[in-house]
Amino acid sequence: MTMTFEHTTSSQRVLFGAGKAAANLAAEVQRLEATRVMAIASESERHLADRVCRDTDIAVWFDDVVQHVPVETAEAARAAAAAHDVDLLVCLGGGSTTGLAKAVALTTGIPIVAVPTTYAGSEATNVWGLTEARTKTTGVDDRVLPATVIYDATLTVSLPVGLSVASGLNGLAHCVDSLWAPKADPINQALALEGARALALALPVVAADPTGLAGREQALYGCYLAAVAFASAGSGLHHKICHVLGGTFDLPHASTHATVLPHVLALNAPAVPELAGRLAAALGRPAADAEEPAAAAVAALGRLYETLSAPSRLADLGFAEADIPEAAARVLKAAPAANPVPVTEADVTALLTDALTGAPPVPAAR
Amino acid sequence: MTMTFEHTTSSQRVLFGAGKAAANLAAEVQRLEATRVMAIASESERHLADRVCRDTDIAVWFDDVVQHVPVETAEAARAAAAAHDVDLLVCLGGGSTTGLAKAVALTTGIPIVAVPTTYAGSEATNVWGLTEARTKTTGVDDRVLPATVIYDATLTVSLPVGLSVASGLNGLAHCVDSLWAPKADPINQALALEGARALALALPVVAADPTGLAGREQALYGCYLAAVAFASAGSGLHHKICHVLGGTFDLPHASTHATVLPHVLALNAPAVPELAGRLAAALGRPAADAEEPAAAAVAALGRLYETLSAPSRLADLGFAEADIPEAAARVLKAAPAANPVPVTEADVTALLTDALTGAPPVPAAR
Repeated sequence: MTMTFEHTTSSQRVLFGAGKAAANLAAEVQRLEATRVMAIASESERHLADRVCRDTDIAVWFDDVVQHVPVETAEAARAAAAAHDVDLLVCLGGGSTTGLAKAVALTTGIPIVAVPTTYAGSEATNVWGLTEARTKTTGVDDRVLPATVIYDATLTVSLPVGLSVASGLNGLAHCVDSLWAPKADPINQALALEGARALALALPVVAADPTGLAGREQALYGCYLAAVAFASAGSGLHHKICHVLGGTFDLPHASTHATVLPHVLALNAPAVPELAGRLAAALGRPAADAEEPAAAAVAALGRLYETLSAPSRLADLGFAEADIPEAAARVLKAAPAANPVPVTEADVTALLTDALTGAPPVPAAR
Repeated sequence: MTMTFEHTTSSQRVLFGAGKAAANLAAEVQRLEATRVMAIASESERHLADRVCRDTDIAVWFDDVVQHVPVETAEAARAAAAAHDVDLLVCLGGGSTTGLAKAVALTTGIPIVAVPTTYAGSEATNVWGLTEARTKTTGVDDRVLPATVIYDATLTVSLPVGLSVASGLNGLAHCVDSLWAPKADPINQALALEGARALALALPVVAADPTGLAGREQALYGCYLAAVAFASAGSGLHHKICHVLGGTFDLPHASTHATVLPHVLALNAPAVPELAGRLAAALGRPAADAEEPAAAAVAALGRLYETLSAPSRLADLGFAEADIPEAAARVLKAAPAANPVPVTEADVTALLTDALTGAPPVPAAR
C-alpha cells in the first residue's frame, strides 16, 4: 500500500500547567508585545477570568457571550475592540466564548490567546461559526486559530462529572472518527491515537475523582489532540450519523455521540485492522494472540464504556424505531465516499437498530 | 505526576506521494503565487531536480552546493536570488542543499519549498548553520523553516542501502532521545514514538528491498517525524555523547549514533517505564506479561539491530579504551540536567566501555 497524503500543520503554542494560567498569560502578553488586551468571558466565568488575568492589564472586558455566536454579539464585540484599539484578544471559557473571540479575529486579524474551561476543543481549530436569522454559518480561516492556548486544569475541576465524561467521550469520538475521515493521514492518525490513549486513561480518573488534577489534565490534553486531529481529518461516518440524529431528530449532542461510536467502530474496524490494533493498544487493551484487532478495539472501547456507565441506547435519548428508515436514508446521502467499508442501507439500518436498543456492537466478519 | 509543558507547533505543509513531486511542486508554486523561482540542487542531483521541476518555470538555477554551507556560498546564492528578484526557493537534495536554501531565507525571508532526497531531516526544522573560517555557527529562526516539504520516495531509491540504514538509525536515535530530552513534552513524545514505529517497520524492508517504495516511504515518513520531534525536544544525553565522540574523537556520525543508542536506552529506560513500554510497542515488541518495560524496549531495539546487522562496537570506529576517561569527563560536563537518571562518571564510563566492545546493553535494575 502506498502512502499518499497532504498534511497542513498549523502554528500554535500550547502552554500547559495546572495553576499556571495567570503567569502563563502575563508572559504570553509580554512575548506578543500586546498593550491593549480585550478579555472575553461570560459573567458566570468572570471570577475565573479575574483570577487568570490578575497579572495582566486588561483594556476592556466583554461579557456578552451567547451560544452559537449571534452576528449582533459579534458586531458588538468587534465595535468594542475597535473603540479600545485592542491588539490582543484573551478569551476564557468554553466553545461559545472562544467562538466569539474567533468572530472578532475573523474580521480584524487580532490574535487570540485562548484559555479553555471545557473540553470543547474549539481553541485548537481554525473553524469559526456565526448565527444570523437562526441559521448558523461556519467557515475555515487561519486568522481565527488562536496563536496560543493556555491550559490550566484547575479551571476545569468544577465541570460537572456527567458533562465531563460526555464531553470527553465526544473528544474520543473525534479521535476514533479521525482514523478514517476523508482527510485522514498518518500524522493526524498518530495524534488521534495519542488523544485516545490520554482520554482512556483520563475519563475513569475524572469520573472517580472529579476534583483531582491528574485526570483533569489528561482529559484536557486528550481533548486538545482530539480537536487537532479532527480539524485536520474532517468528519467521518460517525460524525455524519450524529449530525443526522442531532439535526433532524434533535437528539442531545454528547450522549448521541457516545451511543453511536461503538457501533461505527464495529462497522469500520474490520476493514482497517492495523489501525484497529493500534486503537486497541491506545485504549489500554492490545489484541491478545490470535485475537482479531477489530474485536480487540471494540472490546477495549466496551470496557471503557462499562467503567464510565456511558450511555448506550438511542431509545433513551428520544429516538424511535419508526425513525430508522428516514435516518438511514439521510445517513446514506451524507456518508463519506472514502469510508473504509462501502456504506449500505442494510449496514446503516442494522447500526441504528443496534444503537437504538443498546445491542452489543459486534465487528463484522471479514 | 502533573503535566506541565510548553509546546510550539510550527506551521508547515507536507505533500507526500511517490512519483508526485513534479505535480505537487507545480501546484504548490501556484498556490504560493510565486513567479520567480530559484532552484537549488547540486550538479550531481541536477537530473533529479530537472525531473521534479519539469512543470515549473525556474527563473534561476543555483548548483554550487557545499557541505556545511560556507558563508561565501551563502553570499553567492543570496546575490543570485537578489539579481533575479526571486520570490520562492525550491531546494532539492540532502542537508547541505536544504541548508543553503535556509541561509538565503535567513537574510531575505524568501519562503522555501524543500524536496528532500535523503533522510537528514533538515527540511522539518527551523535550525540553520553557516561555516566561516572553519567554524560552524548554528541558530534557530522560523524564517528558515520550509513552508512546504514535498516527499517523493522515488527520489530516495538510489540512496545506497548501508547509508540508508545508518541514516534511518540516526533518525531513530532522534526519536528515542526526544523521549527524555530537555524540552521533551507529551506531544513531541507521541510524534517521536510514531516516528520510531515507522522506522522499525521501514528499515528492515529498505535493507531487504532497497529499490522498493514501501520501505522507502515509511523511512521518509519516520525520519520526517524524527526531525520534527527532535527539533522540538532538543538534544538529550544520547546526542551529547555522540557530539563528544564525533567532535573530540572524530568518530563517524551515523555509525556512532547507531552504536551508542542501545546503551543510552538501557541506562535511561528503567527510570521512565511508561515511555519505555510505549517505545517497545512502537518497535513492534510490546512488553510480555511481567516483563519490565525497559527490558522490553532494549530487547525490541536489539532485535531490530540484529535484523539490520547494525554497528555495535565503537572499537571498530576508531575509539580506544584509553579515550574513555577524557570522553567520560566531557560527557559529564555536557549531560542534560534533566536526564531521567542523574548521569554519574561511573555510568558514563560503563556505558562507553560496553559500547567500545559491543557488550550487550542491559537495563539497570531499579
